[in-house]
Amino acid sequence: MIVQSQIQPRHEVIGSLVAVATGRRPADLVIRNCRLVNVHSREILSAQDIAIANGRFAYCGPDASHCIGELTIIVEAGGLMALPGLCDGHMHIESGMLTPARFAEAVMPHGTTTMFVDPHEIANVLGLKGVEAMNAEAVMQPINIFMQVPSCVPSAPGLETPGAEITPMDVAEAMQWENIVGLGEMMNFPGVIGGDEKMLAEMAITMAAGKVVGGHYASPDLGMPFHAYAAGGAADDHEGTRERDAVARVRQGMRAMLRLGSAWYDVERQVTAITERGLDPRNFILCTDDCNAQTLVEDGHMDRVVRHAISCGCDPLVAVQMATINTATHFGMEREIGSIAPGRRADVLLVDNLEELSILQVFARGRLVAREGKLLATLPRADWPRESRQSVNTGRELTDDDFSICAPPGGGNGAALARVIGIIENQAPTKELLVELPVSGSLVNASATEDVCQAALVERHRGAGRVVNGFVQGFGYNGDMAMASTVAHDCHHMIVVGTCRQNMALAANRLAEVQGGASLWREGEEAALVELPIAGLMSDRKAKHVAAASRKLSEAMAQCGCHLNNAFMQHSLLALAVIPELRITDLGLVDVRKFELVDLFCNG
Amino acid sequence: MIVQSQIQPRHEVIGSLVAVATGRRPADLVIRNCRLVNVHSREILSAQDIAIANGRFAYCGPDASHCIGELTIIVEAGGLMALPGLCDGHMHIESGMLTPARFAEAVMPHGTTTMFVDPHEIANVLGLKGVEAMNAEAVMQPINIFMQVPSCVPSAPGLETPGAEITPMDVAEAMQWENIVGLGEMMNFPGVIGGDEKMLAEMAITMAAGKVVGGHYASPDLGMPFHAYAAGGAADDHEGTRERDAVARVRQGMRAMLRLGSAWYDVERQVTAITERGLDPRNFILCTDDCNAQTLVEDGHMDRVVRHAISCGCDPLVAVQMATINTATHFGMEREIGSIAPGRRADVLLVDNLEELSILQVFARGRLVAREGKLLATLPRADWPRESRQSVNTGRELTDDDFSICAPPGGGNGAALARVIGIIENQAPTKELLVELPVSGSLVNASATEDVCQAALVERHRGAGRVVNGFVQGFGYNGDMAMASTVAHDCHHMIVVGTCRQNMALAANRLAEVQGGASLWREGEEAALVELPIAGLMSDRKAKHVAAASRKLSEAMAQCGCHLNNAFMQHSLLALAVIPELRITDLGLVDVRKFELVDLFCNG
Repeated sequence: MIVQSQIQPRHEVIGSLVAVATGRRPADLVIRNCRLVNVHSREILSAQDIAIANGRFAYCGPDASHCIGELTIIVEAGGLMALPGLCDGHMHIESGMLTPARFAEAVMPHGTTTMFVDPHEIANVLGLKGVEAMNAEAVMQPINIFMQVPSCVPSAPGLETPGAEITPMDVAEAMQWENIVGLGEMMNFPGVIGGDEKMLAEMAITMAAGKVVGGHYASPDLGMPFHAYAAGGAADDHEGTRERDAVARVRQGMRAMLRLGSAWYDVERQVTAITERGLDPRNFILCTDDCNAQTLVEDGHMDRVVRHAISCGCDPLVAVQMATINTATHFGMEREIGSIAPGRRADVLLVDNLEELSILQVFARGRLVAREGKLLATLPRADWPRESRQSVNTGRELTDDDFSICAPPGGGNGAALARVIGIIENQAPTKELLVELPVSGSLVNASATEDVCQAALVERHRGAGRVVNGFVQGFGYNGDMAMASTVAHDCHHMIVVGTCRQNMALAANRLAEVQGGASLWREGEEAALVELPIAGLMSDRKAKHVAAASRKLSEAMAQCGCHLNNAFMQHSLLALAVIPELRITDLGLVDVRKFELVDLFCNG
Repeated sequence: MIVQSQIQPRHEVIGSLVAVATGRRPADLVIRNCRLVNVHSREILSAQDIAIANGRFAYCGPDASHCIGELTIIVEAGGLMALPGLCDGHMHIESGMLTPARFAEAVMPHGTTTMFVDPHEIANVLGLKGVEAMNAEAVMQPINIFMQVPSCVPSAPGLETPGAEITPMDVAEAMQWENIVGLGEMMNFPGVIGGDEKMLAEMAITMAAGKVVGGHYASPDLGMPFHAYAAGGAADDHEGTRERDAVARVRQGMRAMLRLGSAWYDVERQVTAITERGLDPRNFILCTDDCNAQTLVEDGHMDRVVRHAISCGCDPLVAVQMATINTATHFGMEREIGSIAPGRRADVLLVDNLEELSILQVFARGRLVAREGKLLATLPRADWPRESRQSVNTGRELTDDDFSICAPPGGGNGAALARVIGIIENQAPTKELLVELPVSGSLVNASATEDVCQAALVERHRGAGRVVNGFVQGFGYNGDMAMASTVAHDCHHMIVVGTCRQNMALAANRLAEVQGGASLWREGEEAALVELPIAGLMSDRKAKHVAAASRKLSEAMAQCGCHLNNAFMQHSLLALAVIPELRITDLGLVDVRKFELVDLFCNG
């Protein structure tokens, strides 16, 4: 079945809900005899019935017999636990390399029925049109995918060139759209603190629209700058990593979002603010931020986060609140989602055990959409605009020469001292390394013995034919190989890392051919390919296929000598010109400590 | 000084707040070295500074030295406790017999800085114009007086005639006004449950405007009708009186408002839902509902309620949350009021002791407005529209004959069997009594030996010259006397209770002369007068004067033999045709069990 996703506004159906609750009109569906997890009172209520109509809860109480008519579907819960559908308070769909429909398909069996989404990646490729396209598919879905307007596109103005920019005017326009609930994470915290007019304007526009300003304060300094950032009005933050980060945010009237993503592990160290310090838990929210397709397929989504919070010692009812009512309240939607109570969207999970959270049945807006891990619905998919499938434009076929790095003038001794991006395993920051690299003829070569290979950034938004070359250390690659990816935060040009210029050109041209994704080449042959034809970021195939291709890519990277955790992520973050120390963008090598472009070679 | 009440929207001043927090711009006021009651984290933080600019908190942290400039006012708190200004979640200003400005004046020294107000009484007199007039004065004040649109005017359609009606169209219009935050208590719960289209329309209009539907479910039945009422969408309810009432409301996703008014004592029995049952306290809110001027002057306002909740065993921090952040969150204003955190309106109290809550200094929007119980500001007052001061129109001078009650035809034996309204002390409901009353000539007389006197309702909105006569039992009046009042819930005609027709006419004419209030006459002389010239409900004199006049009135009632608790309230509720059993309205005697008009005399 194709699920009809339309849900009428609550105010249009209150007469119907009252009629069902009184028994004058039959419910569409009744769940009988469940143990109801009430996130308002923080209790488990035994022997409860739930009657649903118009996709919303109409009656929640001890006996819904009077709500049952001839056509009412009856679900005998037999004492199973019923809890509200789970909400992800902050996330990027593109991190799953899936379209919203495919992402929803992957997470619905895991009990996620609401997501608050910042489409920051596609915005860097396609601007507001990309946001609009994401939103168009989001609103078609049978679960709730609320959208924010990305705030920082580009992330590092002056140091990179995105496919499109988001301006305060764009933010003002998008705030009028259906389904837009706020501003995406305000990452430019130095801008906010420094009084940057563009950043403040975006926040002001969001507040004036009565919507929520997402925060992102990625600094350990909890002194004056942090307080100034809070004064700007960011309402939440998911960048905390220590207990004191969470405590500080809550004390400033922000909500602390604790994340467990594919590569984020920030719940355990922060949840002690509740479990040990005893703070009021209402201002803590669970989220994923970034989950790749493999995590979704193999480990789950918000169910994984709630389970993890419980395993960290959190009261199961509090953990559920942190993924339901707390999130709903934060976004001003506590009367619409986040609990099992009259009037709310009938998003409800049946589980047999709260601690293990094995989800047996998932109802979204009153329809059974997944059972025992299996999706029962076919989700509607949007017609993506043509430009979203034509986003990789390198301008011309690239050749080996595009990846040649000329020795600096006046260099001597057959060697050149280069600034090399040093990978730090399991961390987003990089190191600036100074490495002496061999020169042969007029070209500087990578050095396998130093574990240095080439890293190039290929402009792909405007067909400029521009290639910026540099070096990276730490991938462990050996043999003739190259890997290219159009997932290249935050501007999402194309990053090509390789030991061999020929393979680099092959990989880059291949991605231009398939319109994006990731491709690994070894000795002139393609060893792995993840096709991401939508904006070069997302696939519209099923998550399991994307996960399988991603796994194959990881294996191929390993076969080439790379054994880093989250190796693909390290690759895709090489251009992230907002996190220190050294990055590569379409404008050159960037020293992120100084926010300035630097030469590849040190003097001489 | 006249306080300037204007406060710029938060989004207009975030640049300024950030500048203050960083020290680039000096704060207007800095409070140094307080123990800060943080209602977000539910902690007391020692040695905190608070910097304020633009009427809002700019910095809340350990050291605001960098926010201090030459012109910054510095308040040395010396370790005093700082807590957010208190919020009253549900109340009627008219119950204080004071205009909004005079009410604000009375409660500000008690730490109330926010009120959520249902101007239901004036709406019964003047309709939407009355609401507009209340709102006009409310928005001028230096504290936050948010307004709801009364939902049930008249309260008992078909059984009474108010001065004006409120229609769904009126509700729709008012939802567009500045400062309107929702729909006033939906008292017509049988209507909601029964699917009354007008009631559902008002609720739907409110929800569609993104505002809050106030509830009022005044029934002990927590079964099907209660669930159906919840399905209608009321977001709160203050009518609970038992622990299970509060529990039931919270479980249905409503907020339980626990009230302590002049004559409401509903906190103690319901707060055990938190203190004993351990429910999540976030959905409990403190309110007053109705406070008369004497209570305000002698006992306080929200400080009294918080103090009382603490004395009932509530954790002081939880009690403060229930009068601050819980209320703010309920109305979608958690980023605007209700806590001491950046960006919020700088409403803050300095107290030396949380349990006793003796309020030493009150700051509203960053200005010191009261110190040690003394108001430091002169509050602005609106020009009330002419019709609000010309609201008592009996059509003509009344005479003794208007209060003559003719014996029923065919009555015999010099006696008539009458339906008499029986007062129940300390309760709003009345009893229907059947009493045989003496007939002399053609008239039926009251009977002092049965404690029955006359109760008349004089139409006063349209000058219809209509008087409805009846009997009441239980006031204890003796001698020749009468008391008249234009406070006469809910239509607020004029109720005249008396033992003597001459005094009844004198009292009624006196109120027509002074344009409303309450007047007690004894043996042809006026013994007490409370002048309420605005809509016949409110005075624009200081609370202490109104309290003194009220006290004198109570004493005069006692001198006439009435020793009821809240005697004036019993008088003013005689026309309340929504609470059983027997009432008197401008249309006649009403049996509220059947919602129908009945004859004064039983057959024959």
